[in-house]
Amino acid sequence: MCYFRPEIEALIGYTPGEQPQAGKFIKLNTNESPYPPSPRVTRAIQQAAEAGLMRYPDPMGNAFRRRAAEVLGVEPDWILCGNGSDDILTIVTRSLVGRGQLLRLPYPSYVLYKTLAQIQGAWADEVRFRPDWTLPDTFAAPSSELRLAFLPNPNSPSGTVVSRDAMGELAARLPCPLLVDEAYVDFAPANCLDLVRENDRVLVSRTLSKSYALAGLRFGFLVGQPHVIAKLANVKDSYNCDALAIAGATAAIDDQDWLRENVARINATRVRLSAGLEQLGFSVVPSQANFVWCQHPARTSRELYERLKQNRVLVRYMDYPAWGDGLRISVGTDEQIEACLALLRTMV
Amino acid sequence: MCYFRPEIEALIGYTPGEQPQAGKFIKLNTNESPYPPSPRVTRAIQQAAEAGLMRYPDPMGNAFRRRAAEVLGVEPDWILCGNGSDDILTIVTRSLVGRGQLLRLPYPSYVLYKTLAQIQGAWADEVRFRPDWTLPDTFAAPSSELRLAFLPNPNSPSGTVVSRDAMGELAARLPCPLLVDEAYVDFAPANCLDLVRENDRVLVSRTLSKSYALAGLRFGFLVGQPHVIAKLANVKDSYNCDALAIAGATAAIDDQDWLRENVARINATRVRLSAGLEQLGFSVVPSQANFVWCQHPARTSRELYERLKQNRVLVRYMDYPAWGDGLRISVGTDEQIEACLALLRTMV
Repeated sequence: MCYFRPEIEALIGYTPGEQPQAGKFIKLNTNESPYPPSPRVTRAIQQAAEAGLMRYPDPMGNAFRRRAAEVLGVEPDWILCGNGSDDILTIVTRSLVGRGQLLRLPYPSYVLYKTLAQIQGAWADEVRFRPDWTLPDTFAAPSSELRLAFLPNPNSPSGTVVSRDAMGELAARLPCPLLVDEAYVDFAPANCLDLVRENDRVLVSRTLSKSYALAGLRFGFLVGQPHVIAKLANVKDSYNCDALAIAGATAAIDDQDWLRENVARINATRVRLSAGLEQLGFSVVPSQANFVWCQHPARTSRELYERLKQNRVLVRYMDYPAWGDGLRISVGTDEQIEACLALLRTMV
Repeated sequence: MCYFRPEIEALIGYTPGEQPQAGKFIKLNTNESPYPPSPRVTRAIQQAAEAGLMRYPDPMGNAFRRRAAEVLGVEPDWILCGNGSDDILTIVTRSLVGRGQLLRLPYPSYVLYKTLAQIQGAWADEVRFRPDWTLPDTFAAPSSELRLAFLPNPNSPSGTVVSRDAMGELAARLPCPLLVDEAYVDFAPANCLDLVRENDRVLVSRTLSKSYALAGLRFGFLVGQPHVIAKLANVKDSYNCDALAIAGATAAIDDQDWLRENVARINATRVRLSAGLEQLGFSVVPSQANFVWCQHPARTSRELYERLKQNRVLVRYMDYPAWGDGLRISVGTDEQIEACLALLRTMV
C-alpha cells in the first residue's frame, strides 16, 4: 500500500527513550520520577475502576479542571486536558499549522516538535541556542509563514531556562502564538503562567509525567485564555482522557504537599548528581529540571552510554546533527545516582 | 487570537452524546454497556495502579497486541493500539488524507468522520444510503482526489450491515484504502477481519467501549497488514495508551467467555426492545448492533426525545440534514428498556 501522504512516507517517527519491558535496569533515560506517585492517586484510580468503566468519561475532564484551576489561580475554562502533554502539543499544532507553513522551535530541544511539524507537512524553523544555551533574539523574528512557536522551559536536554520576563518579551515580539512547554517547570523556581493572562497568544503546557510521577497515566494539560481553549477543544478527540486518568490526575494535583516533597527530594539529588559528574571531569550544564546534560572531555558520550547500558544503567544518549552529542541523565534516587557515578568512575 | 487555520475556524466540533455528570438518568444515548466489564479488568487495573505509574507505558502496548493477536488469529504486528478507536480514526486520517483531498463516507453514519476530514482541510465525500440502508455501488466509484473511505459496519444509527462478500468487492473496486469501522461488530454474526489478509488496503478498527463495557477506559485498535501498521505507528502520539488502559484491555480481550455472555444478554434485550417499539407503532430498522433506530409515524422524534429526557431517560435524538431525524436507543438492561417502553406507551 503506498497511499500515505508524502509527508508521512518521508517521516522518520519520533523514537522515545528505551522502555525495556523486561530485565532489571536502573532507568535514568526518560526523566521519570524514581518515586511512586502520591498514594491518593492510587486510591482514586481504584475507586474509579470499582465504580465501573462502562460509561464514557467526561469529555472535558471537568473534575480535574476545577481542582487544577484552584491550584493554579485561573478559572476552569482556562484549562484543556490532554492524554499526556504530547496530546496537547498535537492538538495545538493541528489547530494552527498547515502544510507549507512554519513552526518555530529552539535547537536542540524536544525532538517531537519537529515530527509534529512534519506530520502537518509544515516546516520546522529551528533556531539554535547559543553555546551557553541562551536563546538568540532571532527566535522572535517575524516570518510570513510562521504560525506557531514551541519553547520548552526548562529546555531538554539542557535543563536551562528563559526567564519569565524574557519570555514575555519574546511573546510580545513574536507574530504568532507561543506555546511554553513547562513539562519540567515544577523543578524550577519560576514559571510563565501569568503571561497567559497578559497575552492570549501565550499558551502554557504542563504534564503530570515528571514531577507528579505519573508517566504511566498519560495526563497533561494546557493553560490558555478561554476563547482559545474552546477552539482547541474542537480539535481534540471527543474523549481524549479516560476516566481513570481524570480521577488519578485530579487526586494528584490536589496533593500539593506531596508535590513539594517530591520536587525537593529530586532537586537535592540533582545537586549530588551534578557535583559527582563534575568531580569526574564532566562538563555539566546547570539544570533546573529533573535531569542533567553532560559531556566528558576524554570519553565519547556514545561509549559511556554503551558501557553504562552493559552494566544495566540506562541513560539517554542524544546526538544532535550539526550540534553534537552528550548524555542526558535523569535524576533517580540517591542510590541509583551513586551506582551510576560509581560505574562512570571506572570508565573515565 | 485569530491564528487558527481557516479549517479550524470554520469547524463546528463533533458533539458527543450527552454525558450528564450529575443526576440519575437511564442512559440509552451513547451505546454504552449497561453491565460492568469483566471483573478481571478491574483486578488488572488495580494491579497496574499498585505497581506504580511513574514509568512510561510500553509505547506499542505489546501485552495487548500479543493477547489480541491470539484471539483474532493474526500476528501482534498486525495490530495498532489506540486511545479509543477515535484515536485510530484520527491517526489513519492524518496519515492518508491531505488538504483539498477526499475522504469518502456513507450518510448517515458516524458524524465524527466528517469532522476528521474537516480538521485536515479535506472534503467529506458523502454517499447516501438507499432508503432501505443498502449502500449504492457509487461508494466504490473512482475519484482522483479520493484518499480514504470509512465504512462503519454495523452502521450507526441504523445498526445495518454490509455483508463480508460485498465489503470485499467494495474494497477491491475502491481506488483507496478502506477502513471498516467494526465498533459494533461483536453484536453482529460476522465480521470482515479476513479481508485484511487478502488486501492490504483494508483496515479494520475495533473498540472496547461497547461490547467489552469499557467506554471509560478509552481503548481501541486497528488491524492491518504489518507494513501499514508500522507506518501508522509513526503518526500516533508516542505513548498513546496509558499503562492502566493497556492492562485493562489485555484482561478484557483475554476474557472471551465474558464477552460472549455479555453480547448474548444484550442481543436478547435488543429483540425485546425492537418488538416493544414495533408494538407501539414505531418503524424500527432491524439492528445488528447494541442500539436500534426508530421513528414513530404520529409523533416527532424530537418531541419524544424531549419528553423522555424530562422523565430522566436519555436516548439519542439525531437529525441528519436532507435525510431526516429519528431516535437511536441503546440497548440497556431489561428493566431500563421496560421503563423506556412504558414511558413511550404514555406518549404515542
